[in-house]
Order: sequence, then structure tokens, then C-alpha cells
Amino acid sequence: MQPNEPINPGQVWLVGAGPGDPDLLTRKAERLIAAADILFYDALVGPGVLALARPGTELVSVGKRSGWHSKSQESINDLLLTAARAGRRVVRLKGGDPSIFGRSAEEMAHLAQAGIPVRICPGITTASAAAASSHASLTLRGVARGLTLVTAHLRSGEPLMLDWEALARPGGTVGIYMGRAAAGEISRGLIAAGRDPNTPVLVAVNVSLPGERLIRGKLRALAFLTEAVSDDDPTLLLIGEAVGGAGEKRRVPELERQCG
Amino acid sequence: MQPNEPINPGQVWLVGAGPGDPDLLTRKAERLIAAADILFYDALVGPGVLALARPGTELVSVGKRSGWHSKSQESINDLLLTAARAGRRVVRLKGGDPSIFGRSAEEMAHLAQAGIPVRICPGITTASAAAASSHASLTLRGVARGLTLVTAHLRSGEPLMLDWEALARPGGTVGIYMGRAAAGEISRGLIAAGRDPNTPVLVAVNVSLPGERLIRGKLRALAFLTEAVSDDDPTLLLIGEAVGGAGEKRRVPELERQCG
Repeated sequence: MQPNEPINPGQVWLVGAGPGDPDLLTRKAERLIAAADILFYDALVGPGVLALARPGTELVSVGKRSGWHSKSQESINDLLLTAARAGRRVVRLKGGDPSIFGRSAEEMAHLAQAGIPVRICPGITTASAAAASSHASLTLRGVARGLTLVTAHLRSGEPLMLDWEALARPGGTVGIYMGRAAAGEISRGLIAAGRDPNTPVLVAVNVSLPGERLIRGKLRALAFLTEAVSDDDPTLLLIGEAVGGAGEKRRVPELERQCG
Repeated sequence: MQPNEPINPGQVWLVGAGPGDPDLLTRKAERLIAAADILFYDALVGPGVLALARPGTELVSVGKRSGWHSKSQESINDLLLTAARAGRRVVRLKGGDPSIFGRSAEEMAHLAQAGIPVRICPGITTASAAAASSHASLTLRGVARGLTLVTAHLRSGEPLMLDWEALARPGGTVGIYMGRAAAGEISRGLIAAGRDPNTPVLVAVNVSLPGERLIRGKLRALAFLTEAVSDDDPTLLLIGEAVGGAGEKRRVPELERQCG
């Protein structure tokens, strides 16, 4: 990655918009947004981020949200291609990081096939921002040796296909994107596969945005904890011993013992 | 998270410095670095990031690298505490994201126990930046449904304790931080546990820095691929079908078939 790479006419940048707070954009993303002629954005990209575009930039919502799609992936691919072929500087803003559940591969493949140069600018994924907001860590030496991120977002009618056995293994933190609707099934699936029902969970809603909510509890109560969360609010579920509140005073002696 | 939160005297911010390129800092991290009185940084935090501190900021290396520690975690904890108690604005810069293998929980616990307010600013984790640099995705609809991050960094004399069975399951991308020295063992362990020896791998060295190297190959050749990488260069191993080069033209028909 070269410093201060320009955005060239006819080029497409897939840019991670982070979890929502424009302060959590990278400096590079900020520069690319300001340099774009046309900007395609998902529903989860907030107004604070779009406000960084310069006046005159065309802003196009291709809003995808859990449960409905305002544009199909195919039509988004075509919109990007048409704008690039017209010689415009194209930025495709994606919530979080483009490489994590961002379907960036599909857009890249479509554009590459047409000979359009595509670059990626990474973004803060929501799991990192949720950990920061809640003073938790996603890994914990000697306790949570790994982090697994999956999505519960489904195509209409598709069953939830999570690898319960792998996710239930102790010693790992699990982050489930778009997890609200499936919270009950996730709780039952993990417990049935052997995860401790008292495993700490964090329900992170609207992370980094003004309506941010961080709801703590135990795995067995996950469905209850998400009950009051609206379908429209992006929700990440974090599950594991590490998310139990590392920064809280009451946990300190235990942590010290575990971390040695 | 509030917009434009100040950094107060006597407060400690754990700040993600990202993979190295100062352009991949968040806007918030840039602001915190510029506001710090004293800045503690790891060996993996590059000079471009430190250059964003204002003149007069005290820069303290507490450099930890794979294989050696210039300061123990305990003495880092004490340095942070002493600086905060002296009423200074303290920034603790960590490579990547503080919540992912950053040992932030240990520093938070130590400071919280002493009544020092601690906040976290997330950073771009190296896996996201490596995917961006290599035009790959970490997840791929219908192919790679999840992403698991683990570390192969060991305390001296400690055996490598990875959950081979969980990591070998198909349908997931695996990212292994600090993976160079254990590359042969990782390749053998995953294949013995059932992962396809022809699974694509990406060896990502010095991600986002001027000396960045992206080496592609197959899981069975992982030890060979890392042979020429120096012990001193931070190395992430990405393993999985999704990292096989989604942006490359030759892969397009296959991708389209898989992604539907």
C-alpha cells in the first residue's frame, strides 16, 4: 500500500466505513471519500461519514439491511461498473471492514472481469469497536486464545448454518454479526453443543453511534437480552469468557489469576 | 463513544495503531496521539505513526516483539500507572487492534484496580489490512462462512496449543498472527486434522509498510513459503479458500459459481 495513493478516474475503491462513528474511519478512508466523484453506500453507513464527501459528490444509497435488500448484489455490481466505465472516481462504502462479511469478493470479481481496477481500504470491524466501547478484550491470555467471527445474516428462507460444535469449544470468543433475530437459536445451539450456559455475552447495538447500547448477560439468557432490540438496529453478539467485563474492578483479582 | 472526546490529564487511552501505515490509523487515534503528553509504544508501531505526536511529547518504547521482550508486562503496567498518577495524558499505542492479542485486558485491569480511568480506541487489525493489500476477502458467501483469528506467539518454552480440529474444519478462514516460526507445525497440524493440503494460503509480511510482502501458495508448502521471511518481520498467515485471490481474473468464473 503506497502512502497517499490517488484515486484515479475509472477506478473503484471498496472502502471500509467502520461501525458508524466518522471518527473511526481511517485517515485513508477519509481522504478517499473526499476525493470521490460518486459514492455508493450501504444502509449501515451513517450520515456523519457521508458528510465527509465534498460538495457535488453524487451519493447513491444501495442500502442493504438484515431482512431486506433495496438493491440486489447484481444491480450494485452493475452500478459500480457503469460509473467506473464513465471515468468517474468511484468509492463503494461498506459498513465495517469490506473483507469481513462485506461481499467484497463478488464486487471485485465482477469489476476485475470487466478490466476495472479495484482497490480496498480496510475498516474497523464492529467486533473491535464493540470491545473498545465496552472496555472488553476479544482475546485474553490463557483464557480466550482465539476469536471467531460469523454472521447470522440469512438469505430469505435459508436455515441458520453455524458450526455449533466448533463455536461451542471453550477458549474462544465468538462474534456473531447480524445476530439479533437468531439470538434464541444461537443460545440453544451453543448450549446443546456443550458451551457453558453461564458464558458471558455482550449484545452490542448501534456500536459507536449515538444510540449505542451494550447489554451484558449470560448465554442462557441471550434471547431475553435481545428482546427489546429493534430489528432495524445493527446488532453484534459477543460470546465468551473474555467479554465478561475485563475492565471492571470486581473482575480484577480473577483476571490477574488467569493471566499470570 | 462520544464524538471528539477529550483526553484528560491522568487518563490512559489504549489506542490501536493499526498494521503500520499511518494512513490506516483511525481519525480518532490520530487526534489522541496528537493530544498525548506521553506515548508508550510497542516495537510494531512504526515511525510514521509516532511522527504524528506533537513536538515535546515523550515517546517511550516498551517494545515487545516475537521472541523477546524488552519490558515485562508488569513493568509496562507500572509505567502506565506512574504516568497517569503524575497527571499526564497517557496514550498506550498497540500494533493492530488493542482487543485482538493486544493484552489490553491486563493493562486495563491493573489501571482500573488503581482507580485510573482507561478508554480504548480500536485499530485496524492486520488481517483486515492484509486482505485489503492482497485483494482478497476474509469471508466468502457460500464458501468461507467465518473467520477465526489465533496467535502462534508463545511464551518462552511454551508448546503451541492450537485447536487443530476446530481450525481444520472446512468453510472458515484462519488467520494466525505471529505465525512465521510455527509455519511448519501449523501446516502439519492442520493437514493431520483434515484440512485439504491444497487450501490456499497467504503469508503477509510487514503488512501496509514499505517492506510489505504477500506470498501466495498452498497449505502443504507453508513452511517453504515462510523460509525466506526474517524472524524480525511481523508475519500473518491467512489460510482458507477465500484468500486464494478473489480479485484475480482467472478466479472469476469459479467465484461466480460459488457465490451465486
